[in-house]
Amino acid sequence: MEIAILLFDAITALDAVGPYEVLWRVPGARVQWVAKSPGVIRTESGFGMYADRSLGEVQSPEILVVPGGIGARTAMRDPAILDWVKSAHTTSQWTTSVCTGALILGAAGLLTGLKATTHWSDHHLLCEFGAEPVHSRVVRQGKVITGAGVSAGIDMALELARLLSSEVVAQAIQLSIEYDPQPPFDTGSVHKAPPEVISLVREAVRRAQSRQGAA
Amino acid sequence: MEIAILLFDAITALDAVGPYEVLWRVPGARVQWVAKSPGVIRTESGFGMYADRSLGEVQSPEILVVPGGIGARTAMRDPAILDWVKSAHTTSQWTTSVCTGALILGAAGLLTGLKATTHWSDHHLLCEFGAEPVHSRVVRQGKVITGAGVSAGIDMALELARLLSSEVVAQAIQLSIEYDPQPPFDTGSVHKAPPEVISLVREAVRRAQSRQGAA
Repeated sequence: MEIAILLFDAITALDAVGPYEVLWRVPGARVQWVAKSPGVIRTESGFGMYADRSLGEVQSPEILVVPGGIGARTAMRDPAILDWVKSAHTTSQWTTSVCTGALILGAAGLLTGLKATTHWSDHHLLCEFGAEPVHSRVVRQGKVITGAGVSAGIDMALELARLLSSEVVAQAIQLSIEYDPQPPFDTGSVHKAPPEVISLVREAVRRAQSRQGAA
Repeated sequence: MEIAILLFDAITALDAVGPYEVLWRVPGARVQWVAKSPGVIRTESGFGMYADRSLGEVQSPEILVVPGGIGARTAMRDPAILDWVKSAHTTSQWTTSVCTGALILGAAGLLTGLKATTHWSDHHLLCEFGAEPVHSRVVRQGKVITGAGVSAGIDMALELARLLSSEVVAQAIQLSIEYDPQPPFDTGSVHKAPPEVISLVREAVRRAQSRQGAA
């Protein structure tokens, strides 16, 4: 079972590595890290993640994972990436996204008429692609599964692991990665965080977007 | 503020990327990915993570993050890695580990007489280093912070972010990565998972360890 994880410049590392850490443990899984050009891809904060395969080398993965990040705004306008995503989706068993990876699915026309989720700060953009934003951590619509921001990819992938194998296998994967989360604060959702915390994040997102726009 | 994340062969990707995704967002943070030799390091499942710096290039980081993985059993016997960890610890502000990264801290002599945690399947090994295993997700003893298995690095790093900046900044980072976890199962802790799930994981760990031993 071939699982393709898309890499692109200025990706968010955890968007990709969260699902990866779950999905490579599914029996029979073979993960391919895919980018326009194989080699080192730099995340939005400079960490180097290695893509072993070009888009052309992985044409019909059973599972497609599209992470997000500040760079998703560029990737969603890249015809080579959109063509690959569209094409992979025609034969995929599951097409998934994490965070603003949903914008790439949307730009590829895969979310039209579907409920979907993304990072809370970008929910309004889903409407531009004919999708209906839903404030859920994981949204499954037919064979398309979208996850909310960054860390939600872990929850999304555990649900996908269940669909790909069995409940007991997915439970064992959750135990393998000791995923018994105990966040120190209750501010992980925009519906729970206080206004000053939300403002800090919106400001950081604006700064990151304008840095990315300038670059 | 220099943050060094150690990479070594057969690391667990999420052990490193979980804390990374939190810590690079701390104001003033500069993350260095460090390995014996700079270049692509392969995780226990083959993913390539890029180390930009050699051990000798990052000698006095304020924050030290030592991830784990199947390869920790080799890294904990590597004099070059142990010497670097020991030396960095003499000047660090915080010395931290995730998962079996604690075994590397232990082998470097940094856990003697301390309470510590690691992946649940390896808790007994902490005793060999004079540490007292504690079944907590995050254990702080002086300037040493150990996190439990794999995903616990996110919780550990959020606590560290609070110590490095402020509660409101750490809360904003938690919201940035939308860390409002909703695991599909309640099997992420060995104290909650049913016996058949625990057996499956113990068997997978045994297989991985013997593959690593053979390689």
